[in-house]
Amino acid sequence: MKKSLIALAVLAAAGTASAQSSVTLFGIVDATIQRVNNSNGPSVTRLTNSGYNSSRLGFRGTEDLGGGMSASFWLEAGLTNDDGTGAASNVNNQGVASTASAVRPGTQGLTFNRRSTVSLAGGWGEVRLGRDYTPQFWNLTVFDPFGTNGAGTTQTLNSIITGATAVRASNSVGYFLPGNLGGFYGQYQHYLGENASGAFNSNDGTGDGFRVGWANGPINVAVAMSETNNHPAAGTEAKIKQNNVGAQWDFGVAQLMGQYSWDSVGSTDGRGGLIGALFPIGAGQIRLAYSEYKIEPGGGLADPTAKKWALGYVHNLSKRTAVYVTYANLKNSNGSAASAAPGAAGAPGINAKSDAWDLGIRHSF
Amino acid sequence: MKKSLIALAVLAAAGTASAQSSVTLFGIVDATIQRVNNSNGPSVTRLTNSGYNSSRLGFRGTEDLGGGMSASFWLEAGLTNDDGTGAASNVNNQGVASTASAVRPGTQGLTFNRRSTVSLAGGWGEVRLGRDYTPQFWNLTVFDPFGTNGAGTTQTLNSIITGATAVRASNSVGYFLPGNLGGFYGQYQHYLGENASGAFNSNDGTGDGFRVGWANGPINVAVAMSETNNHPAAGTEAKIKQNNVGAQWDFGVAQLMGQYSWDSVGSTDGRGGLIGALFPIGAGQIRLAYSEYKIEPGGGLADPTAKKWALGYVHNLSKRTAVYVTYANLKNSNGSAASAAPGAAGAPGINAKSDAWDLGIRHSF
Amino acid sequence: MKKSLIALAVLAAAGTASAQSSVTLFGIVDATIQRVNNSNGPSVTRLTNSGYNSSRLGFRGTEDLGGGMSASFWLEAGLTNDDGTGAASNVNNQGVASTASAVRPGTQGLTFNRRSTVSLAGGWGEVRLGRDYTPQFWNLTVFDPFGTNGAGTTQTLNSIITGATAVRASNSVGYFLPGNLGGFYGQYQHYLGENASGAFNSNDGTGDGFRVGWANGPINVAVAMSETNNHPAAGTEAKIKQNNVGAQWDFGVAQLMGQYSWDSVGSTDGRGGLIGALFPIGAGQIRLAYSEYKIEPGGGLADPTAKKWALGYVHNLSKRTAVYVTYANLKNSNGSAASAAPGAAGAPGINAKSDAWDLGIRHSF
Repeated sequence: MKKSLIALAVLAAAGTASAQSSVTLFGIVDATIQRVNNSNGPSVTRLTNSGYNSSRLGFRGTEDLGGGMSASFWLEAGLTNDDGTGAASNVNNQGVASTASAVRPGTQGLTFNRRSTVSLAGGWGEVRLGRDYTPQFWNLTVFDPFGTNGAGTTQTLNSIITGATAVRASNSVGYFLPGNLGGFYGQYQHYLGENASGAFNSNDGTGDGFRVGWANGPINVAVAMSETNNHPAAGTEAKIKQNNVGAQWDFGVAQLMGQYSWDSVGSTDGRGGLIGALFPIGAGQIRLAYSEYKIEPGGGLADPTAKKWALGYVHNLSKRTAVYVTYANLKNSNGSAASAAPGAAGAPGINAKSDAWDLGIRHSF
Repeated sequence: MKKSLIALAVLAAAGTASAQSSVTLFGIVDATIQRVNNSNGPSVTRLTNSGYNSSRLGFRGTEDLGGGMSASFWLEAGLTNDDGTGAASNVNNQGVASTASAVRPGTQGLTFNRRSTVSLAGGWGEVRLGRDYTPQFWNLTVFDPFGTNGAGTTQTLNSIITGATAVRASNSVGYFLPGNLGGFYGQYQHYLGENASGAFNSNDGTGDGFRVGWANGPINVAVAMSETNNHPAAGTEAKIKQNNVGAQWDFGVAQLMGQYSWDSVGSTDGRGGLIGALFPIGAGQIRLAYSEYKIEPGGGLADPTAKKWALGYVHNLSKRTAVYVTYANLKNSNGSAASAAPGAAGAPGINAKSDAWDLGIRHSF
Repeated sequence: MKKSLIALAVLAAAGTASAQSSVTLFGIVDATIQRVNNSNGPSVTRLTNSGYNSSRLGFRGTEDLGGGMSASFWLEAGLTNDDGTGAASNVNNQGVASTASAVRPGTQGLTFNRRSTVSLAGGWGEVRLGRDYTPQFWNLTVFDPFGTNGAGTTQTLNSIITGATAVRASNSVGYFLPGNLGGFYGQYQHYLGENASGAFNSNDGTGDGFRVGWANGPINVAVAMSETNNHPAAGTEAKIKQNNVGAQWDFGVAQLMGQYSWDSVGSTDGRGGLIGALFPIGAGQIRLAYSEYKIEPGGGLADPTAKKWALGYVHNLSKRTAVYVTYANLKNSNGSAASAAPGAAGAPGINAKSDAWDLGIRHSF
């Protein structure tokens, strides 16, 4: 629920004082029973999370500074609610250290890995500082009937080659256009790897991205481009580029959408695409998508490709609570070994088939 | 305080709107000065936590879905408030990895290790998904005058052999009977270890438990049984069984209670018992318990046994705030080396005596 | 903002009921773009945090127990809001284990490292249990125009030799004088290292501190002394002593302040000093300070010294939101290699110059 009860209380209580401030406590707890089968690999049944919407706990607020200006903060933590742990962040937009195995999974505490920002906004737009989504991520989730959650997630996100800044970046400075531009929207972000000057990796993890779009009535279309420096070891510099375009058209009986991605890391290319639709039926919604991602290493090597069909249904018990089911069927070829449900124990073999069922409940507050 | 102030505010502010939703922020901060003496080992004085009630910070809420249905969430983190750290969870109901020493204690962040669930409830009961208490835990705490907290904790819990799911399980699906069955209550829980199929340990950490009881007027009695697969290494499979029964009778001047446990891990048995009482006096309560736990490895080996007396007093300064003192005296025999205060630096020697004092304050909100 | 909106809501909603309880959610998100230059070392540009005030998220509350008594709790977590992670605590007031490198930075979850206490208070003062600031810290921040935050932080805190308890201690029992003593204030704190008796390090991390002062009208003056046992390895015992005095005088057009520190770890001494001022101008404030810290190892060794000038301006957009800029210029001599911005990648060389710019925004809630 976007409008927090606590914020309501604050506004009500403020009474005759100016009602210009609020603090909102918000969150989502989404639990999924998931079954994954792999054609030449193991299967697994598990309780996981975020099958429909990403589980989270957050605190946010906005202060009216007068003169059309406002200041805001947003602190949002990911929740692994199947076991109560939090989720890690990434402090420098570079590959995580190779000591991951030294950290016991059960010890992972809450971090504001999803978003941790402070903003100043006015008629000229918004400047935002901290950890935030990258511009190059948004088209992947906005133009995905499954919103990049659960077994139905666009295969582009599951196979993408662009690493630490594919979804979010730390140490970012972002600018957002104001909301009154006749449907035109846009954002630009610069993020820092924060390495010392002089070393070979001085710009590793530093990059830029932008996204511009137009939403009006039933139509929404956007394009995003980005470039991140990638220099994990001496002599291995390789620019990371993540670019995509997406569009949707709401016909009433159905909302059609599609996206296309052209990514690269040095001389390796990635190509992704999705077409899908949402069909409203009563208190529910049918979700359908086909997506694929192909990695093109060049040099005569094979191009590993993963292709996925996904079909789902969401039934809303209220605005805040829904139950849902999703089925996804993935085919690997040319050396790909992607799973229909990344993160589950037991990966499929090379060129295997993988399918997954999600059955879950999403409750927001 | 069970009824949150913030929830109150929300309900009041909602005013003419339907007051059917709430988000509650709740918690306990309980700090204890503890002295532990061991007859042939070191002693230690420390500030610890949770001597009367477990320290915690939580967020919970319920949404009325109409037609007798409701949806709920519950996120509750353990607090190590003597030093500000959180507490780890366990993601797969199996033994924690052997890399514990690689994690510095001061880095442990908050996790919702105590409970992390989403529920649907109706006239037919409640289905609950996530990390939760196991059915086989409840009799140990409900029928313990010290509520499994502090130096007085039933020795069954301190010595128990049943491992990762003795208190809670992650990845659980639980069912609870509705509350209108004339005092009859019950729950069933299935939890998943989430290992890949085909491996020797495919069912490690997967298990089931149930608990049924009857509470009416001064009487409360319950039984719980459980079985968890335990297969940490090839060729070492050993079922974990944790079973117990408990009862209490409230005579007004005193509340008598007792519990008995019969546990096993493969061919090793554990037998535990407690008798105790609570005596109300004015704004306070005297607490008294005798408990013991014996491990029976069989094969002609000795049966390590720990026997503990505990006496305490709680003085309520208000409903939310209490001060308390507890004294516990433990005797080890047949090779046992249990401490009256597990977790304190310096363990007692084999067959040693161990005693502990708790002096603390519990504040809830 | 000290007066929480949520607490306001609670009080308002309580209405005709007694308004004696409250739970307050509070915090600060402070983000800083920082540039550090070192004369014979690397430079770095980064987004960091807490350039003006320390970023935090907290929960606190007070319950009126009647008869002038009250109970309180305070749980406050540090925020690394540039990347969303939390901050570690220290569980035993001793040097952290040498396995720091085994913990990936991005995994650090939230802990209540800043403060985690429960208190009882009355006309006789306050007893406070848990993790809290040490008495020996307060003069360093109260009598620093930069409040020990950002590039302007008194060099005493950045160079101080006194280790784990220089700012806070875990496992503490503190006593605070009541507030009605005609401007006289004071506190005493004892903290425990919690090691087992008998070992060489049994008292490592255990210590005491006190602070007394007098604040009346434009004048505030205070002195603090402390002693902490330090015995990390057999045969290396060395008392840690951290002592300081500070004073300020508010002349209206300017608030002058100064502090002096005399510290020691065994036979090594540390001497620190600061003089500074705050100048109110309109909705803002100019901040100016000169500080230095000299380490005196004795035995004919050189005395590494760091001297820093800092100048800054804070512009308040509201009571809750401010933008600020700070410039600091540090000179190392006699073997010192301190940075104007500790924590940034790339340290200056021996006897180098280091300067730093902070440009940031502080938003509180």
